[in-house]
Amino acid sequence: MSTIINESSKPSCLVIGAGGVGVITTYSLFNAGLSEVSLVVRSDYEHVKQNGYSIESCDYGSISNWRPHHLFKTAHDAAQSGRFFDYIVVTVKNIPDGPKSGTVHEIVRPVVESNHQIDASRITSIMLIQNGLDIEKELLEHFDQNCYKLALLSGVQLIGSTKVGPGKVVQISADRLSVAPFDAVDEIAIERTKLFATMYNNEGHNEVKYENNVKYIRWRKLLYNAVINTTTALTQVDSARCQMLSRESNSTENCLWIPAMKEVIAIAASEGVTIDPKEMEFFLVLAKTFVYKPSMCIDYEKGQLMELEVILGNPLRIARKNGVSAPTLFVIYHLMTILQGKIKERQGIIRFNEKTIKVESVLE
Amino acid sequence: MSTIINESSKPSCLVIGAGGVGVITTYSLFNAGLSEVSLVVRSDYEHVKQNGYSIESCDYGSISNWRPHHLFKTAHDAAQSGRFFDYIVVTVKNIPDGPKSGTVHEIVRPVVESNHQIDASRITSIMLIQNGLDIEKELLEHFDQNCYKLALLSGVQLIGSTKVGPGKVVQISADRLSVAPFDAVDEIAIERTKLFATMYNNEGHNEVKYENNVKYIRWRKLLYNAVINTTTALTQVDSARCQMLSRESNSTENCLWIPAMKEVIAIAASEGVTIDPKEMEFFLVLAKTFVYKPSMCIDYEKGQLMELEVILGNPLRIARKNGVSAPTLFVIYHLMTILQGKIKERQGIIRFNEKTIKVESVLE
Repeated sequence: MSTIINESSKPSCLVIGAGGVGVITTYSLFNAGLSEVSLVVRSDYEHVKQNGYSIESCDYGSISNWRPHHLFKTAHDAAQSGRFFDYIVVTVKNIPDGPKSGTVHEIVRPVVESNHQIDASRITSIMLIQNGLDIEKELLEHFDQNCYKLALLSGVQLIGSTKVGPGKVVQISADRLSVAPFDAVDEIAIERTKLFATMYNNEGHNEVKYENNVKYIRWRKLLYNAVINTTTALTQVDSARCQMLSRESNSTENCLWIPAMKEVIAIAASEGVTIDPKEMEFFLVLAKTFVYKPSMCIDYEKGQLMELEVILGNPLRIARKNGVSAPTLFVIYHLMTILQGKIKERQGIIRFNEKTIKVESVLE
Repeated sequence: MSTIINESSKPSCLVIGAGGVGVITTYSLFNAGLSEVSLVVRSDYEHVKQNGYSIESCDYGSISNWRPHHLFKTAHDAAQSGRFFDYIVVTVKNIPDGPKSGTVHEIVRPVVESNHQIDASRITSIMLIQNGLDIEKELLEHFDQNCYKLALLSGVQLIGSTKVGPGKVVQISADRLSVAPFDAVDEIAIERTKLFATMYNNEGHNEVKYENNVKYIRWRKLLYNAVINTTTALTQVDSARCQMLSRESNSTENCLWIPAMKEVIAIAASEGVTIDPKEMEFFLVLAKTFVYKPSMCIDYEKGQLMELEVILGNPLRIARKNGVSAPTLFVIYHLMTILQGKIKERQGIIRFNEKTIKVESVLE
């Protein structure tokens, strides 16, 4: 991490997404002291403006009344602040099949536009700290990368952190962030990613690692997310019960998880990404030994849309394109889309007409 | 239906299972007037003894204060009544993986034993009006058929009937019962089945059909039960939503139901049972056009054990034995066993120890 940052030219970071993970991400940037840090806080805005955050963190200890340098209620407000944001750090969930207003390109749009108006020659880096595959493609479809001078950066985070109340966050497992440029030969993105790693590093507190191979990191994490996260959501149990409550105490592992993980490895291989099958063991042990409900299970139980398409839909589309058989993931995916549809109906995003037996679109 | 029954020698029938289906079954036997009909009523016993049943039936109209000839609180009480029951008609759910006290052989045991003591030379017919495959095997494992003089009869029923309150039943769709001997060359069972059909027949009200091929009838019904019943339970929606809430409005049908039905057909074929693929359409239309939650979905939502092993476990064991590939049913089954395990935990049949991450058996 050799990049030097002058006090006078500190990069400006805007974090969008103030959930359990977003707040720790923001604090990590703030605490390192190498950037000016803003945060978009939607629902908690008034509370945090008045009281700041109260954080219990395994990485940083007890923190109270903490605020980043700037707070905004919306990305629109941030855009209208007149500031140029060198980094837009996105920590919201990635739900391309949800309402348009919640898609990543719509979330960052006001800031990308205002940056462009303020200084059309300056680079805007967008760091997506999100799960799943092909998440950068949505941005490339909606913005001309050259015109907007975008550098697209990937962040894959292992962390256990939860917002437990207004302005209150509890972090129970250490923050380990892998960063990489989405395009491995984009020199500007490489440089921006390395700078981000420097800005994010809090020696002795968190771990940040610059990676060359963004694809490997993302595919490897799918061993857990496409397989264990999804099955716990379908059965609405913690991962240990998902294993132990099955017919025999190892049939979930043998009949669902291992076959599905092998399918992930096969699809990754068809994209030139080699995952050692030994990697499965790490996630299997994690799943079997913790009474822990992963994100999709929690989202489903809370009636929130799940990151289904980026975690499982996109890998399966790659499997189809490359002619890779993935029968286990295929069935899990199609069952999950029904759960996702239920949430959409409950949220009023779609309406199911019981008379005509038809789905009617409601929101755009 | 040429069998003649003399008033003086009316067969005696004991129906075990007074749910929505069992009560209509009992009424059908009673109304035909060709047998002496007893019913085991567990939870509603006092209510029904005092007030009788109140039934709204699409087959029989409005009926109030109706009681069969005899009521018993338990099968034990029936056994101790000193009566010989020519027919034991079982209409409870078939849950071989639940508590031992709820398995079919344990349910019928007191009556089979008392029949044997009363007259060891007289035939006891056991009519299983239940879903699934290989359900007679459990009885043959636990009773010596010759010693107890058992005739095993199969009933597959299409009916929509629900117990809506104590002693109150609403039947919304017509009763169509297919009966057959489990063993197609057992002359006594054939004769007893034909007699049952005669006793059950209510001309102009219900339909009862003697079939030669019990296997065909049971496999055909699995097109619905192993496929649509299970997927609605996994997603906890009615069958129309199960189809329409998926990613595309036909992806449940194309990616789950049709592949799974083809697997049922292939497994049946490996047992010498030919199901015309055109039969799929009947059940697909039924599923797509009715906002109806099938039994397993209802059972899961009520926290009751599902007929998973007879509906899906047994067909998959046959698939494995015969080397038939059934990847869709396989994944659905293993997900369903986790749901079944959750119900067992909630009912206290098993206990999951979160400290040791082990399942402990509680009830036998």
